[in-house]
Amino acid sequence: MDGGIRQVDVFPAQENEYPVVAWGVPKHGEKVAPVMINRPNVGDYDIKIDMKYCGICHSDVHLARAELGGCVYPCVPGHELAGVVAEVGSKVTKFKVGDHAGVGCMVDACLECDSCKDGDENYCEKRSVMTYSGEKRFKGVGGHPEQQTFGGYSKVHVVQERFCFNLPEAIPLEKAGPLLCAGITMWDPIRNFGATKPGVKKCIGIIGVGGLGTMGIKLAKALGHRVVAISRSADKAELSKEKGADAFVVSTNEEQMKSETKQIDLILNTISANHDCGIYLPLLKKDGKIVQLGACISPHPISQLPLMFNRISVAGSIIGGCPSTQEMVNFCADNKVFPDVELIEADKIEWAWDQLTNLNKDGIRYVIDIEKSAQNPNFLPK
Amino acid sequence: MDGGIRQVDVFPAQENEYPVVAWGVPKHGEKVAPVMINRPNVGDYDIKIDMKYCGICHSDVHLARAELGGCVYPCVPGHELAGVVAEVGSKVTKFKVGDHAGVGCMVDACLECDSCKDGDENYCEKRSVMTYSGEKRFKGVGGHPEQQTFGGYSKVHVVQERFCFNLPEAIPLEKAGPLLCAGITMWDPIRNFGATKPGVKKCIGIIGVGGLGTMGIKLAKALGHRVVAISRSADKAELSKEKGADAFVVSTNEEQMKSETKQIDLILNTISANHDCGIYLPLLKKDGKIVQLGACISPHPISQLPLMFNRISVAGSIIGGCPSTQEMVNFCADNKVFPDVELIEADKIEWAWDQLTNLNKDGIRYVIDIEKSAQNPNFLPK
Repeated sequence: MDGGIRQVDVFPAQENEYPVVAWGVPKHGEKVAPVMINRPNVGDYDIKIDMKYCGICHSDVHLARAELGGCVYPCVPGHELAGVVAEVGSKVTKFKVGDHAGVGCMVDACLECDSCKDGDENYCEKRSVMTYSGEKRFKGVGGHPEQQTFGGYSKVHVVQERFCFNLPEAIPLEKAGPLLCAGITMWDPIRNFGATKPGVKKCIGIIGVGGLGTMGIKLAKALGHRVVAISRSADKAELSKEKGADAFVVSTNEEQMKSETKQIDLILNTISANHDCGIYLPLLKKDGKIVQLGACISPHPISQLPLMFNRISVAGSIIGGCPSTQEMVNFCADNKVFPDVELIEADKIEWAWDQLTNLNKDGIRYVIDIEKSAQNPNFLPK
Repeated sequence: MDGGIRQVDVFPAQENEYPVVAWGVPKHGEKVAPVMINRPNVGDYDIKIDMKYCGICHSDVHLARAELGGCVYPCVPGHELAGVVAEVGSKVTKFKVGDHAGVGCMVDACLECDSCKDGDENYCEKRSVMTYSGEKRFKGVGGHPEQQTFGGYSKVHVVQERFCFNLPEAIPLEKAGPLLCAGITMWDPIRNFGATKPGVKKCIGIIGVGGLGTMGIKLAKALGHRVVAISRSADKAELSKEKGADAFVVSTNEEQMKSETKQIDLILNTISANHDCGIYLPLLKKDGKIVQLGACISPHPISQLPLMFNRISVAGSIIGGCPSTQEMVNFCADNKVFPDVELIEADKIEWAWDQLTNLNKDGIRYVIDIEKSAQNPNFLPK
């Protein structure tokens, strides 16, 4: 998203573009509908992906319904893409036709700043280009330069290989997409704070047992750490244990919280509603870190004294860079760490969004079966 | 300080103790006066220090005047001690008679927890014993076990060698004391975040150009870093440059703040008044840290989004452990990094405290000339 709510109708296809089927919100306030968008021919560094699946993220709902500010319409969401490589550019080295490939939240960045050079394209100093509703600010995204980016709720995508990930065959393709958002969001802070190094065993706390939280539990457990799940609601206990948590703590239960006082090295906080993260600080060991992952709008009131007296840090993190993402994908393939998904067709997108908004179906990621959706004549562009 | 305001009159000397001259606050609300306290005979691991100088810290004022909560009276402050070794215990290895020795903010800790084993005795899980107004909770402090600890505003001190520091001759003895509080407070976070490693060159910001801030500027500069001093008042510009800052920024000047946007790796924030540390976050590079060093009572309102979008941390730190302190002392000796001090006699302590409270004599540390004070018959115990 760059800027406020805008309407930029799909430009007529240029000579180096062709129309493809997609699903999205045509205009602000409208429902999800089939739309035609354009994809560019494959450039030297691009791969063309025949889309098979695309995960649905809660941020798709927020953005496409303009709940958190701006959006460019038509909005074709989707940043959890998984498909099969159908064509590769002349200079592509990482992919060949037939490979499984994925795309996450970004499709371009300046590639020249220190962050990009570090492989932290997600922290590009000139801001990376989002997979959907993004401005093509750099050179890496094909098609009409003034058209916003369109995401993975579509039959075909063309993306420069740097922002595409090799998906090993060990990963069921319908489960690959959510790794590229929920998976990397949890992996990158674990990695950044040294807990993916071989032999390092820590205690990792996960606050919030939803889509992000369950991925965090699985990843941390597969890495061999002790995992403490933390939730406001006691009824997440069973789910947490099922996903691999060694302990479960209700954050409003003083006694349970005390049982983990100064026991945790790293807390990943997935809560995206406004809250006081100070209540979790006593759980941290000396030099402990709590990493804020959910976008809260109101500032947190953070007391300085616990930070000082235990050398604690409050940090933040958002998705991850390309090398970190590929590393996470490979780890998940090797360790059979997959999200729990439920397949839907494109005509159920609006329903799935309502589920995400109204219910809290724990740890399940809805994934669009793109191939099947493209065979449903009732939900295709006329 | 352990607990509230209490009066524990000096116990009669035990057979293994002897009375010595000191200066402190006899009762809550009284002025600084000469008092007699007891010091223990030298134990196996202790050294006896003939005190030469003791620095005055603003926290002496806060505690002895019970401004921040409790204090045990009589209160003999002083945690910036410097003197000459007069006697060593049979098992002492680090010192010999005639050496210069210093003591900082702690005189004991449990020595068994992970923090103590890490050399982070300042984060002892059972809390370290403060040099003054502290409870003798462990075994390392001699004398009457129910008597509170008495600090460095006194003619003699006896401390276990672990909590004593070798002061190389290159350090003028009257300038050594403040290193053990202001110096280590600034050194330890620089060290903890990797900026004391040879060859590492960073940009370090120092917020607040007072006693702590000027030490921070000197240390960071001597380590070869670029140093940005940050203050609310423009009139600290000259002082900052004089102490070695490469740049100076007024925090309320938008343009000046912009000139350092995303330029700083590590900010040491010495402000101890309540404030919003969020205004400094835009100065940090990706992965930047701001370390809060001043004890603010009100929580900071910290926005999550800048933490997330730049992977920034807000951390805390308080003094430093024994190995870090000795390392800092040696660095200061080798690099001629000394605080700026002004010598006073004990009869001027109350005046110096008022100066610290009412004025802001930039970067000057008042230091009591203990030897000279002990020769003034008008300000000795009757």
